[in-house]
Amino acid sequence: MRELYELCGGDPELVFSPYCWRVRLALLHKGLSFDSQPIRFSDKAKLAFSGQPLVPVLRDGEAVVSDSLAIFRYLDQRYPAKPLLGDALSSARLELIDQLTRHILPTGLLKGLVLQIHAAIDPADRDYFRESREHKLGVSLEQFADPVAGQALLQQALRPLDAVLATQAYLDGAEPAASDYLVAGFFFWAWSLGEQPWPGESPVGLWFQRLLGQYEAQLGPVKRAA
Amino acid sequence: MRELYELCGGDPELVFSPYCWRVRLALLHKGLSFDSQPIRFSDKAKLAFSGQPLVPVLRDGEAVVSDSLAIFRYLDQRYPAKPLLGDALSSARLELIDQLTRHILPTGLLKGLVLQIHAAIDPADRDYFRESREHKLGVSLEQFADPVAGQALLQQALRPLDAVLATQAYLDGAEPAASDYLVAGFFFWAWSLGEQPWPGESPVGLWFQRLLGQYEAQLGPVKRAA
Repeated sequence: MRELYELCGGDPELVFSPYCWRVRLALLHKGLSFDSQPIRFSDKAKLAFSGQPLVPVLRDGEAVVSDSLAIFRYLDQRYPAKPLLGDALSSARLELIDQLTRHILPTGLLKGLVLQIHAAIDPADRDYFRESREHKLGVSLEQFADPVAGQALLQQALRPLDAVLATQAYLDGAEPAASDYLVAGFFFWAWSLGEQPWPGESPVGLWFQRLLGQYEAQLGPVKRAA
Repeated sequence: MRELYELCGGDPELVFSPYCWRVRLALLHKGLSFDSQPIRFSDKAKLAFSGQPLVPVLRDGEAVVSDSLAIFRYLDQRYPAKPLLGDALSSARLELIDQLTRHILPTGLLKGLVLQIHAAIDPADRDYFRESREHKLGVSLEQFADPVAGQALLQQALRPLDAVLATQAYLDGAEPAASDYLVAGFFFWAWSLGEQPWPGESPVGLWFQRLLGQYEAQLGPVKRAA
């Protein structure tokens, strides 16, 4: 039995967390099936078995692993075929790519997504979401939301990805691996919330379509917010 | 005979180009000695043998290679001990790290360095430098220069590097390799121009000191602009 505990919206089939999407894509890469265990913000007590409060959590038989990169490491150790991380040097570089892309990608995207998230989550989660995010952002959700400014920030942030993807199909080379899934998590986040704030015909837009096509060919259409 | 053609200031011992520094550090990593061939902007005809106009150029016996990453690849192929790039996956990740760090690091640094560069280069180079950079920047050097704003930009950009270096000595893990030299080139650029716009006691400040110490132990003090 393999279960992925992941954040869901008011509709339990709407999963949108970028870090949960990383793990979905990694499981698909390994050819491993899983049951989705949708978790609302107000359901977090259901994660107590993992010893920490955050999704994603993978339960795989006796193993319980949280944190997207730790799950990648676990998957490579337990299922060595089709490595996600590679050797020690490749793994070190992946950690750096994780930090660099967390630095440049989420802010611009969040400016266009924050009100969609608020609308998509269960009504019982909305007060928690608003309070926790407004505390972190230092302004109200409505003051932070700015799709136009977000798109301008994103446009800048896509340049390094476009530069790499102009000459190869995936960030990790001719075939996708962990870098692609780390970064693609942010794109599936926007997509599942009903947005696509990047140009579809750009290198990065075509890369996303390839990953989306591979996902949907195996696991069916991605549920998107209305 | 191994020669590194690199950009110099009015003082030919003052070398400051970040991309040339990458190659100096890579040659040191491989334990390969070289003769510096200092090139001023107005000396670029001296690079005609390389078939292109940009430093760094490495001439190694019959081989002539330009572009810092192409030089890394050449060095790994010709001198396989102590790999810089690693396997295909590591190399793909290095290209992504190169694009991501070129996106976040140089602008903030340049705001604090542009007038120092103008002052450090040969007087005969100054008109060319001003015209070419003002064309690219869209404003005058003096309008672009803003060390305070540059330091604020840099402080943001250092966060992902600090996050990685908080738990390991080098970006590439326990030992330095190509990621370290790619990124360190930007820090040696500032250092050689007499600046250090990052906190010395931060993870990234201590990492720079380790690389600087290793360099100076082998090749002597780095010449810095007054």
